[in-house]
Amino acid sequence: MQRHPAAYPRNTKRFAAHSLDKADPAELKAKASSLGLGFDAMNSNTFQDQDGQPLSYKFGSLSHTDAGTRRQAVEHNLECIEIGKAIGSRALTIWIGDGSNFPGQANFTRQFERYLDAAKAIYAELPDDWRLFTEHKMYEPAFYSTVVQDWGTNYMIAQELGEKAYCLVDLGHHAPNANIEMIVARLIQFGKLGGFHFNDSKYGDDDLDTGSIDPYRLFLVFNELVDAETRKASGFDPAHMLDQSHNVTDPIESLMVSAMEVQRAYAQALLVDRSALDGFQDTNDALMATTTLKTAFRTDVEPILAMARLENGGAVDPVAAYRSAGYRQKVAEIRPEVSGAGGGIV
Amino acid sequence: MQRHPAAYPRNTKRFAAHSLDKADPAELKAKASSLGLGFDAMNSNTFQDQDGQPLSYKFGSLSHTDAGTRRQAVEHNLECIEIGKAIGSRALTIWIGDGSNFPGQANFTRQFERYLDAAKAIYAELPDDWRLFTEHKMYEPAFYSTVVQDWGTNYMIAQELGEKAYCLVDLGHHAPNANIEMIVARLIQFGKLGGFHFNDSKYGDDDLDTGSIDPYRLFLVFNELVDAETRKASGFDPAHMLDQSHNVTDPIESLMVSAMEVQRAYAQALLVDRSALDGFQDTNDALMATTTLKTAFRTDVEPILAMARLENGGAVDPVAAYRSAGYRQKVAEIRPEVSGAGGGIV
Amino acid sequence: MQRHPAAYPRNTKRFAAHSLDKADPAELKAKASSLGLGFDAMNSNTFQDQDGQPLSYKFGSLSHTDAGTRRQAVEHNLECIEIGKAIGSRALTIWIGDGSNFPGQANFTRQFERYLDAAKAIYAELPDDWRLFTEHKMYEPAFYSTVVQDWGTNYMIAQELGEKAYCLVDLGHHAPNANIEMIVARLIQFGKLGGFHFNDSKYGDDDLDTGSIDPYRLFLVFNELVDAETRKASGFDPAHMLDQSHNVTDPIESLMVSAMEVQRAYAQALLVDRSALDGFQDTNDALMATTTLKTAFRTDVEPILAMARLENGGAVDPVAAYRSAGYRQKVAEIRPEVSGAGGGIV
Amino acid sequence: MQRHPAAYPRNTKRFAAHSLDKADPAELKAKASSLGLGFDAMNSNTFQDQDGQPLSYKFGSLSHTDAGTRRQAVEHNLECIEIGKAIGSRALTIWIGDGSNFPGQANFTRQFERYLDAAKAIYAELPDDWRLFTEHKMYEPAFYSTVVQDWGTNYMIAQELGEKAYCLVDLGHHAPNANIEMIVARLIQFGKLGGFHFNDSKYGDDDLDTGSIDPYRLFLVFNELVDAETRKASGFDPAHMLDQSHNVTDPIESLMVSAMEVQRAYAQALLVDRSALDGFQDTNDALMATTTLKTAFRTDVEPILAMARLENGGAVDPVAAYRSAGYRQKVAEIRPEVSGAGGGIV
Repeated sequence: MQRHPAAYPRNTKRFAAHSLDKADPAELKAKASSLGLGFDAMNSNTFQDQDGQPLSYKFGSLSHTDAGTRRQAVEHNLECIEIGKAIGSRALTIWIGDGSNFPGQANFTRQFERYLDAAKAIYAELPDDWRLFTEHKMYEPAFYSTVVQDWGTNYMIAQELGEKAYCLVDLGHHAPNANIEMIVARLIQFGKLGGFHFNDSKYGDDDLDTGSIDPYRLFLVFNELVDAETRKASGFDPAHMLDQSHNVTDPIESLMVSAMEVQRAYAQALLVDRSALDGFQDTNDALMATTTLKTAFRTDVEPILAMARLENGGAVDPVAAYRSAGYRQKVAEIRPEVSGAGGGIV
Repeated sequence: MQRHPAAYPRNTKRFAAHSLDKADPAELKAKASSLGLGFDAMNSNTFQDQDGQPLSYKFGSLSHTDAGTRRQAVEHNLECIEIGKAIGSRALTIWIGDGSNFPGQANFTRQFERYLDAAKAIYAELPDDWRLFTEHKMYEPAFYSTVVQDWGTNYMIAQELGEKAYCLVDLGHHAPNANIEMIVARLIQFGKLGGFHFNDSKYGDDDLDTGSIDPYRLFLVFNELVDAETRKASGFDPAHMLDQSHNVTDPIESLMVSAMEVQRAYAQALLVDRSALDGFQDTNDALMATTTLKTAFRTDVEPILAMARLENGGAVDPVAAYRSAGYRQKVAEIRPEVSGAGGGIV
Repeated sequence: MQRHPAAYPRNTKRFAAHSLDKADPAELKAKASSLGLGFDAMNSNTFQDQDGQPLSYKFGSLSHTDAGTRRQAVEHNLECIEIGKAIGSRALTIWIGDGSNFPGQANFTRQFERYLDAAKAIYAELPDDWRLFTEHKMYEPAFYSTVVQDWGTNYMIAQELGEKAYCLVDLGHHAPNANIEMIVARLIQFGKLGGFHFNDSKYGDDDLDTGSIDPYRLFLVFNELVDAETRKASGFDPAHMLDQSHNVTDPIESLMVSAMEVQRAYAQALLVDRSALDGFQDTNDALMATTTLKTAFRTDVEPILAMARLENGGAVDPVAAYRSAGYRQKVAEIRPEVSGAGGGIV
Repeated sequence: MQRHPAAYPRNTKRFAAHSLDKADPAELKAKASSLGLGFDAMNSNTFQDQDGQPLSYKFGSLSHTDAGTRRQAVEHNLECIEIGKAIGSRALTIWIGDGSNFPGQANFTRQFERYLDAAKAIYAELPDDWRLFTEHKMYEPAFYSTVVQDWGTNYMIAQELGEKAYCLVDLGHHAPNANIEMIVARLIQFGKLGGFHFNDSKYGDDDLDTGSIDPYRLFLVFNELVDAETRKASGFDPAHMLDQSHNVTDPIESLMVSAMEVQRAYAQALLVDRSALDGFQDTNDALMATTTLKTAFRTDVEPILAMARLENGGAVDPVAAYRSAGYRQKVAEIRPEVSGAGGGIV
């Protein structure tokens, strides 16, 4: 679940919108730059009502039946582009909660037409060197139908909008049992893969830490990415973002471990003997083909990853270093454990 | 999703806990009684932290690793029993969010042992004429494992606790594709069906209006209930509760329509020619057996339901009557549409 | 599952291929015509090896790594077109079992490129007044990946091939929880819905009788079809076929009941008050919108369907008429119940 | 899917029933013993009709409505026990295909009563030093309901029968998204885990090679087994069997690789620092707890497994050794690739 309009620094968690809103963009960009950080895609948020917002998104935003509400949602996206320009972003990600909770509540066709019209209005204002990422999700917050429910609809959108429009794949937004790595391959093949929201899930959009539930699936996704890289697939330049919810861990620790999981999957995918793999595929030697992937996946790349961290001025064991620095204890003094408002394991 | 410790009036929505807490129980009981309402099962809530609560349920409640936290959760349940006694309830429903988000976070066995110990401590204080309902749920808020994840574990609990312990079935708390009516039949057969949380769902615990997505499934559940009634199954006395979230409808309208759906399913199940059905089952005439069910399901029982409402002093068309009464408009004046805090379609 | 290359008469079961192969097409067409039957889409079969076939489809057919095997599969499809021309068919349906059972067994991209090349070779020979239907399926017989795994890939194929290419929707070929009526709406909107394989399912490609598990879902699909009909959607002319496996019923009885289910869903969808529905949708009155659908679905259309059968020279109660005619008993004398080879409930 | 009544040698594929039937048991036992092989559980087969069988299992076996058919199925199981005694087996595995394809076809309660009666008749004849394993499966070959549909029903059976009755867990027989390792933990905790049918799956009962789709899940299952071993759980003595279908690989190669996957998961689970894990669990340090599991899983145990094979007189690289021995080529000469009957990727 995404909760805030936000700009994603690469490989780390979005900043909450209110911080961004109040911050001076130039100052923010300078501060980030001094830390070696930049801003990836801007994420608009028309799936939640904001304080003082004139029209509610209760019944939709970009696909709302009311033209005024659609216009308000379009304008929010245009504002995100403006902020993004100021802080050095070059992409806009649109994910909406529009859909329906009851059969008949919405006419699927007219709803999607309205969505496409609104998306085209945003696309028309996109700077030439920007990309537009649309993100699909099977369900939630709408529980009967979702306007951009799967990669099929997402692909239709990217085609309708034009060559700067791409599909974003969140690993947790698919139907049960879906073969995600194959969806990734299809989008690459047709030049429409924009990037990822990495996380892991067992049931739905669980937003667990990347690689924590099924690390082999993560590796298989990276196997497709390295395959595309290797054959220099046209238009291939995916953005990498983490989109997780941290309910039982320290968010900073989870982000460190998740970044390492992404690096591990990438390193292991680079280890695949692609020439041998091609040969086994051509001769339908399924056993040796799959063993070739497994051999790379089983290789313990921890030593080389640790050395890479060290050479880049990082810690060999980031979590241990972070814990010994005592950051969380200091923060904990001003953030109570029992919050009242939300609480519980959620 | 259940959000508040609450007492369920039959076939209607829970009252929020804070109202109950502040209310004088005797007064509440008298007021309800004057309206022809009574209180069904009490629902404890240890899945959310309350203001001023000393220990957090972030890492669990009845199964928490810390004895003090478990004791606090047990005591909350005992308090619910006390309130329930005062307002005329005779059952306690326990649903907990305990589980884990990561493989290894919890030891499944020790966690369940702790749960059973705490549940036994509650059961020991249950009045003789009360029943204890435990409720299972596949996932959410925990996203890797849930302590009471399915009816199998729920049944183990009811067995361990004793003859006053029963399983509660929420129609939305199962794995994809699960045959819910069969689970209902098994629990009846072994004398452990306590009751229902009715709602409907397409993806997960969607909490949509009962019968809105798959009305035939609802009918098949009632087919089991009528079958048990007909053969006077031992220990069969299920509680009927609605547990829904109303995000795009007027909650009162949804509750009226849902109550009618439950009545419709029950009326249609009563129409099944059980003697003919038995004959087709005995001779493996699958086509005529299933047609026997379908014939009852297809029967338009709307006229008889409307007449029953009329004879009971209700409206023939409750939604139309409610709308013409203008209740919602009056309330809307003091409840703004755009809330800021939550908002959106959720 | 489809097991035989076959031509589907409208609303009835495919004839086994070997019968067709041996039959003289002209004679077959005359015979069918004399019975008021015609032939709908031809179904090619490259998902099973046939006696005497030079090259095996064990590792694929249209997407096989071996050019000779792909050519053999293409030629089989061309032969189906030839037979179809002779018996009056005007469409070819392609469903293949190609895929992989292991990660790495096939390169997704190259496999799909080979599929597209082969499909284009078939499309090039399609008569001008024919349509080509491609059919997707999530899994089975391949259990890790399937070349045409979902409607997204299916839509890509239809786009790549051209304006005579359409997508076929089998109701049982989707991921768990998929909103099938929405997929139908999307394909209609983009002019690519070719037709249906009707059946019902609870778990996978169960091929149960149409409407036997979730009759409301069937109604919702027809609701989309009537909606498209009403607004005269461009290019909308779907083929209707039943694709079921009858393991515990008399196949002829199942086909009669299934045909009636399709007619019932269509009749009920025609009863939807579309003008009222539009109004409720425009004002986001979700409760009344869904009630409008439910009201039509609940209407008992059995009397009018029976009268329509009678007026068309059919039986009021087809199953009873068929049973009293004693056809099955006569056939049973020459077909033993215990077959040895297959047997069991399968 | 299981296709043949069979005796499983540990960690290898079942022998087809007809071979067993014809073989002299004493001779078979001696031959196996000379090769260092023994016989694990006997698998009865009442899910398929056999040549010359008087009564069909089309509508069920142990739960059939007809007493004679139930008796025939019971007697087949007793015969399996007799053969098993002769060849040194000490367990019987019962998996049945009984269920229904249509709502209403079977009365769930009476069907399960009949099953329990028949199972008790078998159990009564079980030798004192034997165990009875019952196996659950969500669906297939029955597609609406299955008599032993999940571990909940399986557990009820084991309880009803007595202390020699245990539950068998096939990794592919669960609902989508089910947490299998947790089911394993529950059955161990209540003393009812009998053993496993190892395989892997992405969609349903795919019967793919063990560990080929989700190796981390396999590790998590073994983590529970080692946990139980470590704390000497009462009644814990699970049988290990492979139950796979090999459609695109050489079955012998798949079995070798699968056996190595099982050994790898076991070795990695033994590497888990359980004392550290306990500590992290007790203090709810979810991140370090899950990292403790991951660290073991990531450890490359290939060198030690290879050395173990070598020390036991096996090959360092079994597949390479097998291929260089040319066994398959010799066999291929008498087994044609295109079979006609079945064929295709299935």
